[in-house]
Amino acid sequence: MTTASICTIGDEILIGQIVDTNSSYISKRLNERGIKVRYMISIGDDRDEIIDKLGFCLKETDIVIVTGGLGPTKDDITKEALATLTGANGYKRSEEQFEIISKILTARGIELSDINRAQADVPDSCVVIPNKNGTAPIMEFDIPAERYGHKAVLFSLPGVPFEAIGAMNDVIVSITKSFATENIVHRTIVTFGIPESTLAKQIESWEDALPEYMHLAYLPNPTIGVRLRISVYGAESGEKLERLETEIDKLKDILGNAIYGEGEDTLQSILSRLLQGPPQASYQETLAVAESCTGGRISELITSVPGCSAYYNGSVTSYSNNVKINVLGVPREIIEKHGAVSRECVEAMAKGVSKLLDSDYAVATSGIAGPGGGSPEKPVGTCWIAAVHRSRMTDEFEVVTKQVRYKSQRDINVQRFAADALNLLRLLINQKIL
Amino acid sequence: MTTASICTIGDEILIGQIVDTNSSYISKRLNERGIKVRYMISIGDDRDEIIDKLGFCLKETDIVIVTGGLGPTKDDITKEALATLTGANGYKRSEEQFEIISKILTARGIELSDINRAQADVPDSCVVIPNKNGTAPIMEFDIPAERYGHKAVLFSLPGVPFEAIGAMNDVIVSITKSFATENIVHRTIVTFGIPESTLAKQIESWEDALPEYMHLAYLPNPTIGVRLRISVYGAESGEKLERLETEIDKLKDILGNAIYGEGEDTLQSILSRLLQGPPQASYQETLAVAESCTGGRISELITSVPGCSAYYNGSVTSYSNNVKINVLGVPREIIEKHGAVSRECVEAMAKGVSKLLDSDYAVATSGIAGPGGGSPEKPVGTCWIAAVHRSRMTDEFEVVTKQVRYKSQRDINVQRFAADALNLLRLLINQKIL
Repeated sequence: MTTASICTIGDEILIGQIVDTNSSYISKRLNERGIKVRYMISIGDDRDEIIDKLGFCLKETDIVIVTGGLGPTKDDITKEALATLTGANGYKRSEEQFEIISKILTARGIELSDINRAQADVPDSCVVIPNKNGTAPIMEFDIPAERYGHKAVLFSLPGVPFEAIGAMNDVIVSITKSFATENIVHRTIVTFGIPESTLAKQIESWEDALPEYMHLAYLPNPTIGVRLRISVYGAESGEKLERLETEIDKLKDILGNAIYGEGEDTLQSILSRLLQGPPQASYQETLAVAESCTGGRISELITSVPGCSAYYNGSVTSYSNNVKINVLGVPREIIEKHGAVSRECVEAMAKGVSKLLDSDYAVATSGIAGPGGGSPEKPVGTCWIAAVHRSRMTDEFEVVTKQVRYKSQRDINVQRFAADALNLLRLLINQKIL
Repeated sequence: MTTASICTIGDEILIGQIVDTNSSYISKRLNERGIKVRYMISIGDDRDEIIDKLGFCLKETDIVIVTGGLGPTKDDITKEALATLTGANGYKRSEEQFEIISKILTARGIELSDINRAQADVPDSCVVIPNKNGTAPIMEFDIPAERYGHKAVLFSLPGVPFEAIGAMNDVIVSITKSFATENIVHRTIVTFGIPESTLAKQIESWEDALPEYMHLAYLPNPTIGVRLRISVYGAESGEKLERLETEIDKLKDILGNAIYGEGEDTLQSILSRLLQGPPQASYQETLAVAESCTGGRISELITSVPGCSAYYNGSVTSYSNNVKINVLGVPREIIEKHGAVSRECVEAMAKGVSKLLDSDYAVATSGIAGPGGGSPEKPVGTCWIAAVHRSRMTDEFEVVTKQVRYKSQRDINVQRFAADALNLLRLLINQKIL
C-alpha cells in the first residue's frame, strides 16, 4: 500500500497564528486514490528541523507533500533546506514560472522586484510544475530507491490555500504514474438533529452487525450535523460494494428524515436541490431570510451555493428592534408583550420578509448568541426559529416554529442556530413537495 | 527551554474530512508562556500508531498535548492506547466527570446510556481534570524522569473544539506548576490593502536593520490583511522591549493608514472601536449594510463582535435586482444603464440602506463572485464597493467608492470583497472622526 505524509512548514502555525487547512484538502485527494496518509506534521521555519523531519518522513513513507515556507518574503527558508536535503548542486531558474510571476504582478499593477524574481529560482535537483495560481513554483523531487531503501517522492507546494489546492491536480497525475494505488471506498451519510450519542444508540445493532471490512466513524459538526462515514477496505470486490449499498439502505430505514444527504452535501446545497428540483408548479419558488442573532450567517450559507440566484431573493438582518418593526413589519405589541426572542416575533419576521422580498418560502431567527444578555427564562444560547410557506393562491401562510437552546460560545451558537434554521426550512419544503 | 508537541488523533483528519483547529489554539496558549512547540502531528485511530507516535513525542519534548479520539462512540481507542503507553493497571471511574455527564445529558433531555457512563472511566495512571463543557474527561499523565530521561507530562483533551479550548486554562495552570518557562514576546501589527510582496519592499530597509534577537514574519490572510509579527527572543531584558517599541513606531511611520490594529484586531473589531470610541456628537452613530454578491458575509463579520447592537442596525442582502429596486430604492434605470455591478448601483444601494435602516454610515457591495457570470469588462472576481456617511443636519451623503478585482474561488472572492468593504468603511470613518 502506498503511504504518504504531509508536512506543513511555518512558525505561524506553531505559534498558533494560523490554522492549517491545506493538510486536510491534500489528504482527502490522496485518500481518494487509495493512498494511506500515515501522519501530518507541522514544523517551524527552522532549517535543521525541516531537513530532519522531512528526512524522517521520506524514510517512513513513499510520498511526502510539503506546503508552506515558499512566499516571496525573507522568513522562508524551505527552498534552501530542500536543496540540502536532496543534494542539489545549485539553483536554476524556471523560465515558465518566471513568466507566470511577471504576468500575475503586471495584472495586479505591481512592479517586479528582485524578491519576486528569486521566486522562480529552484534547486537543480527538482522538476518544476508551474503554479498557475500564484508566484511560488511547485517542485517535485524524485528520490532514488538507494537513498531510503524505497522509491520516494517529495512535492513542495505553496502555502496559500487556493494555490496548494490548485497544485494537487498536477501532483496526483504525477503520483499515479509512479506509485501503486489501492481501493478504499468511503461513503458518508449526513444527518441533522440527533445528537451523536443518541444516534450511536439508535444504530447500535446495525453497527454491531457490520462485516469486519466495513468501518464506521462519527463526524459531528455544528453546521453540518453528524456525518456517518462508512469505509470499505479492499473494495475491489463487487460483493463488498453490494453489501455497502445494502447496509446504507438499512441505515436510511433506521434514521429516516434525519438523513438529508450524502458525501459533501450540506443543508444549503440540499435546499438548493429541493428548491430547484423537479418543478411542482409552473414557476420557480423563491426564498427569503430574516435574521437577527444569526447576523447574516444564514444568508451567507445560502449564497455559498453557486447558482442560488435562481431561487434566492435575499435577506434582511434586523439586528435592531426598529428594523424588525419598521422594515419587516413586526407589530410593536408583539415585541413589547413577548420580546424579540419569541415564537410570535420570529413568525412575524418570517411572514414580513416573505412579503417584503416577494418570496414563497422564508425562514427567520431571533435569539441570544451571547456572551451578554439572556434571562432565566431565555438564557444565552436560546433561539426561536420560524419557517413559512406562502400560498400564491390564498396568500395564507403555513408556519413551523422551533426553539433551540445551546451552551456554546457566541460564534458556535450562531453557527448552530443557522444550521437549525436551514434544517427547519428543509423539513417544511420536504413536507410541501412530497 | 520547555518544549511541547501537539498530537491530534482521528482518522477523519487523515482522510481530510475535518480540519484540525485545536492545535492552533493550543500552540498559541503554550507560546504565550514561552513554551516552544516543536511540532504538531496528526495520526489515525490506530492503537499501535498512537502508542508509537505519542512515545516518540514524550521522548523528544517535555509536554505532549493530545486531542481527539475520546468521543462516546466506538471508533475511539485513544483511552486504551494511553492506558498501555502509561502502564495503567486498570480503569477507575471519575465520579466528578460522571456527575457532569449526567447533568449535561439531563439538560439536553437525553437518557444516560452505558456508552455515556463509560466516558467517566479512565486509566488509573492518570489524574482527571473535570471537563465542564462536555462529557469526555481531561486526563493528565505524569511520566517520571526515569522513563524518558526527563520529566514529561501528557494531557489528553477532548477533540470538540470548544471543549479543548475550555480545557487549556486548567492545563496551563498545571504546566506552570511543574515546568520552567522562558520569555518570548510576540507583537503583531495588522495591515490591510498592500500586497505582501509590495509590503516587503516598502519595509525592506527597516527589516534589514532589525537586531538579531528580533524576527519578522508575514502572515497574509484574505479577511484580515497582512499581519506582521515581530518576535523578541530572550525578552527578559527591558532594553530589548524598549527597542521593540521603537521599531514598531518606525514601522507605523512607514505604513501609515495601511496599519489598522495590533494583535487579534480585525477590521470588524476596529470598526466597533471607531464607532463606539470617544463620541464626536451627542448620540451614537449607527451602521447599516447592503450586500449582493457578499451574501451576508459583511453583516456576519460585523455581528461577530459582541456588543455590536450599540451601533449596528442591520442589513439587506439584495441578491435579486428586484430587491435592489423595490426594497433599497435603486433606480431601475441605473441597473439598466450601468448594470448591478457598477459604481452607480453600489452608491445607490448604500444610500438606500442608510435611509431604510435609518443609519449614519452604510456600506454596500455588488460584484461577481463566480464561478459563473462575468463579462470581458466585468470578469468574475470584480466587485464595486461604496461606503457612505449621511449628515443628520443636511441629509446629504459623503460617498467613497472602490472597485476591486480578484482571481480566486467563489468563497475566497466573497471573503476578500467583504474585507475590502469593511476597510473602505474604516477609511471613511477615520476621515470623518479625525
